[in-house]
Amino acid sequence: MINDTPFSPLVRCLPIEARQPSLEDNRADADRLKQAVAREMGKQGAQSGELRIPYPVLTDVALRFRAAGFRGGAVVNMLDPCLEIVDFLPSVPDRLPALALDLGTTHLEAALLDLQSGDTLATGQIENRQIELGTDILTRIHFAGPPDIEAKQDNREQGLARLQESVISSINELAVRLAAMAGIATGEIRALSVSGNTAMVHFFLKATPFHLCREPYIPLVNSPDPCHAHELRLCIAPMAPVWIMPGIGSYFGGDLVSGILATGLDTAAETAMLIDVGTNAEVVLGNREWLIACAGAAGPALEGGVARMGVKAGPGAVEHVDIDRDHWRLSYRTIDGAPAVGICGSGLIDLAAELYLSRVIDFRGKFRPAAKPESQRHEQFLKRHLVADGSGYAFIVVPAAEAADGIPVTLSQADMDALMRSKAAMYAILTTLVAQVGVEFAGLNRVYVAGAFGGHIDPGHAITLGMIPDLPPATYEPVGNSSLRGAGLVLLSGEGRERSREIRRKITYLELNVNQEFMLRFSGARFIPHADPALFPSVPVLQAEGQ
Amino acid sequence: MINDTPFSPLVRCLPIEARQPSLEDNRADADRLKQAVAREMGKQGAQSGELRIPYPVLTDVALRFRAAGFRGGAVVNMLDPCLEIVDFLPSVPDRLPALALDLGTTHLEAALLDLQSGDTLATGQIENRQIELGTDILTRIHFAGPPDIEAKQDNREQGLARLQESVISSINELAVRLAAMAGIATGEIRALSVSGNTAMVHFFLKATPFHLCREPYIPLVNSPDPCHAHELRLCIAPMAPVWIMPGIGSYFGGDLVSGILATGLDTAAETAMLIDVGTNAEVVLGNREWLIACAGAAGPALEGGVARMGVKAGPGAVEHVDIDRDHWRLSYRTIDGAPAVGICGSGLIDLAAELYLSRVIDFRGKFRPAAKPESQRHEQFLKRHLVADGSGYAFIVVPAAEAADGIPVTLSQADMDALMRSKAAMYAILTTLVAQVGVEFAGLNRVYVAGAFGGHIDPGHAITLGMIPDLPPATYEPVGNSSLRGAGLVLLSGEGRERSREIRRKITYLELNVNQEFMLRFSGARFIPHADPALFPSVPVLQAEGQ
Repeated sequence: MINDTPFSPLVRCLPIEARQPSLEDNRADADRLKQAVAREMGKQGAQSGELRIPYPVLTDVALRFRAAGFRGGAVVNMLDPCLEIVDFLPSVPDRLPALALDLGTTHLEAALLDLQSGDTLATGQIENRQIELGTDILTRIHFAGPPDIEAKQDNREQGLARLQESVISSINELAVRLAAMAGIATGEIRALSVSGNTAMVHFFLKATPFHLCREPYIPLVNSPDPCHAHELRLCIAPMAPVWIMPGIGSYFGGDLVSGILATGLDTAAETAMLIDVGTNAEVVLGNREWLIACAGAAGPALEGGVARMGVKAGPGAVEHVDIDRDHWRLSYRTIDGAPAVGICGSGLIDLAAELYLSRVIDFRGKFRPAAKPESQRHEQFLKRHLVADGSGYAFIVVPAAEAADGIPVTLSQADMDALMRSKAAMYAILTTLVAQVGVEFAGLNRVYVAGAFGGHIDPGHAITLGMIPDLPPATYEPVGNSSLRGAGLVLLSGEGRERSREIRRKITYLELNVNQEFMLRFSGARFIPHADPALFPSVPVLQAEGQ
Repeated sequence: MINDTPFSPLVRCLPIEARQPSLEDNRADADRLKQAVAREMGKQGAQSGELRIPYPVLTDVALRFRAAGFRGGAVVNMLDPCLEIVDFLPSVPDRLPALALDLGTTHLEAALLDLQSGDTLATGQIENRQIELGTDILTRIHFAGPPDIEAKQDNREQGLARLQESVISSINELAVRLAAMAGIATGEIRALSVSGNTAMVHFFLKATPFHLCREPYIPLVNSPDPCHAHELRLCIAPMAPVWIMPGIGSYFGGDLVSGILATGLDTAAETAMLIDVGTNAEVVLGNREWLIACAGAAGPALEGGVARMGVKAGPGAVEHVDIDRDHWRLSYRTIDGAPAVGICGSGLIDLAAELYLSRVIDFRGKFRPAAKPESQRHEQFLKRHLVADGSGYAFIVVPAAEAADGIPVTLSQADMDALMRSKAAMYAILTTLVAQVGVEFAGLNRVYVAGAFGGHIDPGHAITLGMIPDLPPATYEPVGNSSLRGAGLVLLSGEGRERSREIRRKITYLELNVNQEFMLRFSGARFIPHADPALFPSVPVLQAEGQ
């Protein structure tokens, strides 16, 4: 799915063999090196641009070039149109490691790539330490404090400074780990690419995020220019370029641009869709001619944020649920087979769809305690699972005896209501987007589903709920962490970097906050599968019976 | 003499009026600013390039842009092909000060220019504090110590670090002074251009100068890329670009390239010559088609470095000497009319020429104590001025009674010998250079003489000595501090900056150390005016008489 792009890494190590200086050839060391690099780049057909040796490394680079006998490997940051010679090695090393990073709100995930071969040397993830300062983005934005243009750069908004320090230290720890796995020193990591949502990129850059969450939702920056690792106190090579995936707006960040890059949505002839579901649902529709995107609050129900027993995907999370309606038996699976601690997004969707198919909930998502049992088994099933819970009812997914710490995993009516709002928002977003450009869902042969969620979700169950359109389940292709893959792509390919800028230029962002149709569509989507069941021909219509 | 070049300063402050952000126009602040700057530059027909906002000022610039209501003045470093937005002001200021600096071995001289109007706001000079660490370049190079590629950047070669600190503190002091004169804060100085000899530029950049004075005399760098003021701990605006005039080699620095720029040697149709005399004589010959240069040790005789009573041009220095041969009276003039403390280069040349014309020295530059006086006055003159001095004779220029501290100003035979070597070297350099390209001295309509020396020297006397070719004295045009003027030019003109690079590309450097003809020419020039008097038709031939 990653397009075959010409190999043109962000940093190169070029083999250099310069003439020895003499009275007849008295070029200065630095100028000699530049000319040799320019010649080698010409030979390799590399991007052209003006070669510079940044002041902080001028003397080091020139002395190393001389010490190596005017031959070896020149490390060049390909920051077109200014190319920087940042180091000189006695020879071209076998590997030129660089770090691709998905800067997530809760986790950072990284891949250590070799810019010489394109190989992956190590991968890993780590919790984002910013969680200590605020579990969600909004809390962190408030923690960052208001802008203070009078403060000195170094003292600006202590909160924001702490958010930056916190994420940088997480990145450094992850870099140390991956370097150890690959058997290299962190100083050998020659580049970093970063893909994250707009707020995370602001924290990373210590750029005031104050206006991100205030109408009209204006970021401080969407396309940050590359900087050097030392400027951010990263522990990798000090002059390593830090390349940040450009974003589109406050609610549509570089992580999504990465997704477009990784899926090749922007280069395909056929129109396709990319869905990334988290606290926000972010959706892109398009092809090589046009791209349209929107983002909306899908509610945190799917990220373990609302359901009382909701948890993030992790060991012990119930990720799949099945109800055998012949024998009225519920089976479930937890991640890593660990004792159940809660239910994650994909488990929640499975459960809700099965509860609907089992008529435990009605088409409004409400528990039906008064429904007449079909059989004795059915009656026992209802008795075992559906219990009175304060003012309403709750469904016991995992009984206390099987669950971790003896705490049963349950789903309350409130949890179910939150899920209904989430699924309705999701479907409303998708329909608003396709309506905007006059495309039919049926015309889509491919819908990419990004994120951890995309890998676990059962499209059939999501269709049953009316969360996603009623297309053949194979249409839905999980793409894993496409934010990380996009970050890897820009490290390896100049065309990838160019495409990321091009995506920014050609994408149209549809603001749902000012979209009147969206609320209408949202209302229609608050039923299972939908107020208009004709939209979901594959889903059995159950609402007539037993009401 | 400074060419009229299109006004395109190194830093601009562009008037910006951007649209207010809204839900319909949700571009990020930084991106909005960049687009507004690009539009304004297009309108003004300014150089194009990629606009960047450097990381260290990203948040500051964006916050100031917003605080100013998205209108005001954007400060842009025109470092083609990468243009940097480094500040945002509430409005375009009346003046945009920048500092042009001549980085001399003994003195720094600077001009504070307004990049909006091209006006000079203040000028001044200051002693180079490096003198405390070594009076001459060679001593300082030794003080800097050998290269140490293992040392950390910040601790490299303590000597070199001290040389850098020392010159930077001199520059800062000068900047403070000029800013006070112009009534501005140093932080308002938005750019610095530096023109200096190659060693001085190395000290300024803390670039190891070790190989400058060791065959084959290779600089660490000839064309340093621009850096920012804060990287050098300069007290001007932190993001002010520091633009360094490129040099040609160890013995031909950016100060000479400045001279070429300031005189327009590189753009004129007619071939002309530029001479800069100091410890080294540096000479350039050329026109808009070609440039050839060489430098040679002229001996320090002319810089107050060798003659026992030799002093630099300064108060009390004898700068002009005349001998009235009708009445046999010597008259002299000191700088500022102060009591005589010594004799400077121009005074030395006057004196030697007059002594020759007065037959006090012969055509080899030797005192002639045995010469028969022409008259009683002549006899008294000789008695008063020519005295036995240990093994030889000395000439009293200023008697003790008239001199400062009662110490007479005298010229010994040793001093005279040193001057003869200097003048011979000078003439040999000039003839070697013209011979190299097959030009005749007579074909030159203009010979520019740079430096303080150029302003004081009497060309007639220098011709009499055979130091410079026998051309009409009006051919010799003093150009003052052309190093400083070149530095000013590159601040104000993009064409000037481009020309400086072009000069570097097209100039041919003639290495005299490996030139066999040079020694022959040197021998012939060790006579007054020359072993071949036909080369100096305007100079009376006196050697036959009285020998």
